[in-house]
Amino acid sequence: MSRASTRRRSHDRSRAKSSLAGAPAYLTRKNPAYELLDEEALVRLEDHADWLLSEIGIEIRDDPEAVELFRQAGATIDGELLRFDPGHVRALCQTAPATYTMHARNPARNIEFGGTNLVFGSAYGSPFVSDIKGGRRYATLEDFQNFIKLTYLSPWLHHQSGTICEPVDIAVNKRHLDMVYAHLRYSDKPFMGSVTAPERAEDSLAMAQIVFGEKFMQENLVIQGNINVNSPLVYDNTMTAALRTYAAANQGNVISPFIMGGAMSPLTQPAIIAQAHAEVMVGIALTQLVKPGAPVVYGSFLTTIDLKSGAPTFGTPESTLATLAISQLSRRMGLPFRCGGHLTASKIADGQAMQESTNAMNPAVMAGANFIFQAAGWLESGLTIGYEKFVMDAEQCGALARIVAGLEIDDEQLAGDAYREAGIGNNFLGVEHTMRHYKSANFRAELADATPFEQWSEAGSKDMQQRAYELWNRMLAEYEVPPIDPAIDEALLGFIARRKASMEDAWY
Amino acid sequence: MSRASTRRRSHDRSRAKSSLAGAPAYLTRKNPAYELLDEEALVRLEDHADWLLSEIGIEIRDDPEAVELFRQAGATIDGELLRFDPGHVRALCQTAPATYTMHARNPARNIEFGGTNLVFGSAYGSPFVSDIKGGRRYATLEDFQNFIKLTYLSPWLHHQSGTICEPVDIAVNKRHLDMVYAHLRYSDKPFMGSVTAPERAEDSLAMAQIVFGEKFMQENLVIQGNINVNSPLVYDNTMTAALRTYAAANQGNVISPFIMGGAMSPLTQPAIIAQAHAEVMVGIALTQLVKPGAPVVYGSFLTTIDLKSGAPTFGTPESTLATLAISQLSRRMGLPFRCGGHLTASKIADGQAMQESTNAMNPAVMAGANFIFQAAGWLESGLTIGYEKFVMDAEQCGALARIVAGLEIDDEQLAGDAYREAGIGNNFLGVEHTMRHYKSANFRAELADATPFEQWSEAGSKDMQQRAYELWNRMLAEYEVPPIDPAIDEALLGFIARRKASMEDAWY
Repeated sequence: MSRASTRRRSHDRSRAKSSLAGAPAYLTRKNPAYELLDEEALVRLEDHADWLLSEIGIEIRDDPEAVELFRQAGATIDGELLRFDPGHVRALCQTAPATYTMHARNPARNIEFGGTNLVFGSAYGSPFVSDIKGGRRYATLEDFQNFIKLTYLSPWLHHQSGTICEPVDIAVNKRHLDMVYAHLRYSDKPFMGSVTAPERAEDSLAMAQIVFGEKFMQENLVIQGNINVNSPLVYDNTMTAALRTYAAANQGNVISPFIMGGAMSPLTQPAIIAQAHAEVMVGIALTQLVKPGAPVVYGSFLTTIDLKSGAPTFGTPESTLATLAISQLSRRMGLPFRCGGHLTASKIADGQAMQESTNAMNPAVMAGANFIFQAAGWLESGLTIGYEKFVMDAEQCGALARIVAGLEIDDEQLAGDAYREAGIGNNFLGVEHTMRHYKSANFRAELADATPFEQWSEAGSKDMQQRAYELWNRMLAEYEVPPIDPAIDEALLGFIARRKASMEDAWY
Repeated sequence: MSRASTRRRSHDRSRAKSSLAGAPAYLTRKNPAYELLDEEALVRLEDHADWLLSEIGIEIRDDPEAVELFRQAGATIDGELLRFDPGHVRALCQTAPATYTMHARNPARNIEFGGTNLVFGSAYGSPFVSDIKGGRRYATLEDFQNFIKLTYLSPWLHHQSGTICEPVDIAVNKRHLDMVYAHLRYSDKPFMGSVTAPERAEDSLAMAQIVFGEKFMQENLVIQGNINVNSPLVYDNTMTAALRTYAAANQGNVISPFIMGGAMSPLTQPAIIAQAHAEVMVGIALTQLVKPGAPVVYGSFLTTIDLKSGAPTFGTPESTLATLAISQLSRRMGLPFRCGGHLTASKIADGQAMQESTNAMNPAVMAGANFIFQAAGWLESGLTIGYEKFVMDAEQCGALARIVAGLEIDDEQLAGDAYREAGIGNNFLGVEHTMRHYKSANFRAELADATPFEQWSEAGSKDMQQRAYELWNRMLAEYEVPPIDPAIDEALLGFIARRKASMEDAWY
């Protein structure tokens, strides 16, 4: 490498570091949440959720322990079917905390859930990855590590999410060990553990204990499980067992009905919203029956289907309305709220992808969401995480951070002195007020191109995906692993080796 | 053409017609407007606008008639510089109507301005056009006509805007005649006339009179002028003369400060907002001094610049905040409000274009805008109108129409019967409730692709731009000109011929 390019690399690296160093660990929304529905409509939705739980009921399948907890709490039990008097489930949720801290390996990255706080996290759950050069392919552990690194490097992502993608090159019963290790080793922000089996949740907790200490974790949140409901109105034992494992350890659960209206619920939005509210309350209640005061997030993931093909659709107007409405129900529960994300059915990071993603994401922010994972990388209805899409979405998270910071209307911002200096009809580029503010006034996008047509053409007429390709490659090239105590690293690796040695590979 | 393809074409054509026939002439927003700022902040902004008009002042250049109107109304005049006591300009705006009808050539396309109504219109003002096959090139009259036709065919665009693109193949002093003719002949929705010179505004009015009748136009709005302020704090005589021409005829003006913060105003959003408020009030006041009760729209077009290059930027978080705030100021004036649009600096309809466009447009809708032109086609900071972008944007207008229709929370929408029919854990695709609602519950996007990856690949892995190319070509192929009284058409053509014969071509 020439001396010039070495110097440039070292300069670039210090830029990458400093952008991370100045980044907020989480956001605090200064703007009011948007209130779509009035009191009467909200009460009607809550009443309907109560009707569902008392008249239709909800099933917890293959988990007698969970059913027994609800029996003792006063639910009406008929085999696996639970029914609740109106208001009962909501009352069982009352011990859930309204706000709490989630600790990161790096304490400067601790986040606060609830209130007016807002946390962005990466995508979750894709079996495929894609980039514009390599195309779409099954994800590997290397991809998983890459996305952890990109999350670490992004100043606009606060939470690493969990199963960013499925490392399908690792056995199903062992990959959670490599994933949790990657979360703990290649980044230092908060993350989620495994939920695919209770013993994998236990492993996730054990690895977190190596890093954070068993005693610390008895009182403090460091890891979460991402729990989906098997809608309509069913919890399966995989989810409830993982939920109980995290709650029993006083760790977190993010509980989200994932409802595609018309399939897993009736087609109409009010039904979807009320059903989701009923479902999520039962999950929240279960965390509190296992461990009163256990931290939990009220989640929702409500979307639509194409009624000709049955395919899921995202960023649709109906899902926007559902997001706005259910956020109000969560606020009336007084719990941290998760919804939204940069969601799309598009296979590539084209116009459709960004139109749908922006449509899906921005209402969640306006609605007052506290936790938005799936905020970077989603493509193809979640089947794929895209490298270009990831950095494009992350930049949009930066823009949203500027929006939630709001406006301050004071003398300095009103700039009376600038008018006295510039006079009428003249431009303000050179006035002192502009000099005082030009570094901080505007969010600076890196991927959005505002150059003149001629300049853009001469630079190769690159679309946003092509510029994003260059950005994520540069970021990975400049990545430096954050420090870890070598003894802790050794202990983690030892734990993984022992656990892997104790099992045969399972591939399904 | 084979019989099968004839049948398909005829089927397609009837579909295109029926989608237009069922389209609403305008929208009525059921959702509350988003309120970003509190009373104290809003009063502060209004006070600062008053301060600007009393301490700094505003200039009206080369239009002594306009200055004289303000002198008679009590402004303090110093040459071309006008100053106003606090509250004075606002008081002069009080005769402007809060709501009014704009008449279309087809009465079924009449629109209502103000209140909770919402009108979408096409882009305005581009010298260039582009499509993915033909690339970027100067616009011609054929392009202008094509975009009128596409606007006519779109069920989601209610207003034809005005100078959709500049037909640069026609002489500068004559092209307004061909543009107004295209508006009146190739579509039947409301539109804007010429503002580039008073005599061109007079020609626009004269042509409208041929269609609507002179007497009808004395009492009814059928044509508008799009007036921009020469910010900071200057109106030039081109704009004020056109404004006075339309107002004197009791026709409409849409008055919008176009401010790129940091250049035509200080850099900080509160200053931009207060300045825009001051500027637009002066224009509104002028319409009322010319003709009390003349219909006028409170417009704003506030955006940012890239502070490294000075290039304008769109869909930025700062412009979102400005849009949300100034909408509140307009609402306190009680006037129809114009802002927003599908705006972008991107040169092509890629991810950047749709991310920025959605970012720019959706807050305008949430903010309670009444009139959003620039809603379809914008590219390259307005320098280009794109064919693919046009139909992509128009589809998003359809999605927004669904959002503003809001949610109705009643028994039918809550779907209690669907749960009794489906039972727990089963899908709802076949239940009666779904059958009752599947045709109308969800907005149906035509360009957004939700098919599985394999199906999408087999169909050619087309991105949204490629699908959009097919759509706009199909639309133009199926276009049928709306009927017009042949005597009126002849009179229009005769007027144009006489006016063209009266002038030498001017090319600048």
